[in-house]
Amino acid sequence: MNLNQITSPTLLVDKKKCVNNIRLMTEKAKKQHVIFRPHFKTHQSRTIGHWFKKMGVNKITVSSVQMASYFANDDWKDITIAFPANIREIDLLNELAEEVQLNITIENTEAVDYLNKKLLFEVGFFIKIDTGYGRTGITFDIFRTIDNILNHADQSDKLKFKGFLTHAGHTYQAKNANEVLDIHKDSMHKLALLRNQYIEKYPDLIISIGDTPSNSIANDFPGIDEIRPGNFVFYDLMQLHIGSCTFDQVAAVMACPVVAKHPQRKEIIIHGGAVHFSKDFITINDQKVYGKLIQLDKKGWQDIEEPNYLVKLSQEHGTLKVSEEILDKIMIGDLVAIVPVHSCLTANLMKEYISVHDELIDHLSGKIK
Amino acid sequence: MNLNQITSPTLLVDKKKCVNNIRLMTEKAKKQHVIFRPHFKTHQSRTIGHWFKKMGVNKITVSSVQMASYFANDDWKDITIAFPANIREIDLLNELAEEVQLNITIENTEAVDYLNKKLLFEVGFFIKIDTGYGRTGITFDIFRTIDNILNHADQSDKLKFKGFLTHAGHTYQAKNANEVLDIHKDSMHKLALLRNQYIEKYPDLIISIGDTPSNSIANDFPGIDEIRPGNFVFYDLMQLHIGSCTFDQVAAVMACPVVAKHPQRKEIIIHGGAVHFSKDFITINDQKVYGKLIQLDKKGWQDIEEPNYLVKLSQEHGTLKVSEEILDKIMIGDLVAIVPVHSCLTANLMKEYISVHDELIDHLSGKIK
Repeated sequence: MNLNQITSPTLLVDKKKCVNNIRLMTEKAKKQHVIFRPHFKTHQSRTIGHWFKKMGVNKITVSSVQMASYFANDDWKDITIAFPANIREIDLLNELAEEVQLNITIENTEAVDYLNKKLLFEVGFFIKIDTGYGRTGITFDIFRTIDNILNHADQSDKLKFKGFLTHAGHTYQAKNANEVLDIHKDSMHKLALLRNQYIEKYPDLIISIGDTPSNSIANDFPGIDEIRPGNFVFYDLMQLHIGSCTFDQVAAVMACPVVAKHPQRKEIIIHGGAVHFSKDFITINDQKVYGKLIQLDKKGWQDIEEPNYLVKLSQEHGTLKVSEEILDKIMIGDLVAIVPVHSCLTANLMKEYISVHDELIDHLSGKIK
Repeated sequence: MNLNQITSPTLLVDKKKCVNNIRLMTEKAKKQHVIFRPHFKTHQSRTIGHWFKKMGVNKITVSSVQMASYFANDDWKDITIAFPANIREIDLLNELAEEVQLNITIENTEAVDYLNKKLLFEVGFFIKIDTGYGRTGITFDIFRTIDNILNHADQSDKLKFKGFLTHAGHTYQAKNANEVLDIHKDSMHKLALLRNQYIEKYPDLIISIGDTPSNSIANDFPGIDEIRPGNFVFYDLMQLHIGSCTFDQVAAVMACPVVAKHPQRKEIIIHGGAVHFSKDFITINDQKVYGKLIQLDKKGWQDIEEPNYLVKLSQEHGTLKVSEEILDKIMIGDLVAIVPVHSCLTANLMKEYISVHDELIDHLSGKIK
């Protein structure tokens, strides 16, 4: 890696680690006999998409119609938009549905009725189920609402019921792997009730789950037909903190120039702020943390065991709180490496990646608005 | 405004309100006999830059070398980069310095020594001063460090001392206008000491201050030569909350489609998440708030007095907590308007604007990576 060429905040990707993450999840899906439909909202990259394709992946998940188009135009033919159908985008949905096997997510009859009238092509739909996260979806045991949606959908030949989809996003609040497993078990138990209720009428129904912590940590997926993890492609400090991955699996880190030092406060100021990292944070010992300082080298990066955290961000500035030793070692003009808290949001802001072999890697947000 | 054409999250700008904000600040600067060097990091738009130019503004502030280039290429000739000099970008600095009157910000001798060796053209520099914010800069009364920088800079004919620059960013933590004024007074008192110390040797030195709350609220700038507010061009929910502006001055709001309703929780789910708003928040009654619901209409927007806040954000989803009345009124597929917490970060993520007269307005982040 030519570190001298890096003059401003840059998102680095280690392809080897990234491909290893993809391989591990692909193998787990095979072993568990579940469909692997990775979520591409984390990387949003056609190049990285090809790494999945080489591993035999041919079904993907995205979080917006725009993202679906980006990948449909790169020859992905089976795409699920795991976001409540936005009926204002009906024209784009029709364009997509003409080209690919498109699946959407439904959680209300208003959307069904509208789509019944306006869809020109066949579209698969998953009913979004809430197993405890409390963001979107129908609570897993409110069968009346589910039946209502199914009945409305039956009135058209365009919407085809595929199954139930959930995102147990509350695993992101877990403090350790055991808490993740508890949520995972609870979620699977609820989905089993749902399957029992509908499997007779819909013998081909698919139960699809999504969160990276469960998909990374669990080794037991009874009653699950499909997994849709996304973040695992890079992982990040949040996932390290939860226990979803090891440091060696972290495949994307920020490289940032050092612009100031404040020895009395033991602070180092980097070019790298909210417009690079995002303002997502985790809390460690009552301290907001936006990233962790690690060691950059020509081949990539290595961990620094002692915790030196990115503790403040403004638009362009980042403040690292560091040990005496690090303070002495790091000089104005140096480049430092930082594991971001949330790789999805960091990648979305950075708009492109540089591999540790100096290749430019695309990101949707650098291509179109 | 053709609301039917808006199908996905969109950042709206009311040009009339925006130009009025620019006019008010231009007039205040004139009345106070201070140079008006607005910070363009909020809007990052050439189009909006032209609105300033029409008002007679010809000096600007930016927060990165990239942003300086974007505006230099649109014929801005006098640019201050209010961010500690990043010496890794020396080539870009030299390119800029050849074309425009470039000013940079310095707070350590390492940067001075490097620039002394590498600068090919004359560059003005401000010494960054800390009057209490505690992010960057030399504490206002550590004259030894300031003298040291001035002595190092004297060893080259390229770096020309312009004055002292501060950003009293702690006004953003203020709970009301009086707290802002207290910080402003304290900051000016400290800068007066600095001026007294150096005015004899540097009779032309410029004292430059920057934060939008002080610049908006204060009507007294003794000893100040230049103001660099940025956020005032749009304002946002944070500024409303601090008391820097009235609702009628908020010139940029988000329009987002409604995709789901959860009546039991009194929640409405919009397409509009962390990749649109940013995860910056303010805290109101112990609740994280990312934005406030207002009323959208064909001419623009109006306030809704009762507080209905955007209380959760994930990558693409936003959760509005609303009253019974709003819950009944807003339908799936509707477009709602939301005042974002931090307009600078929202604009950076959105990459472009639509005016309330349906014109497309550029943003740097939509132009280049």
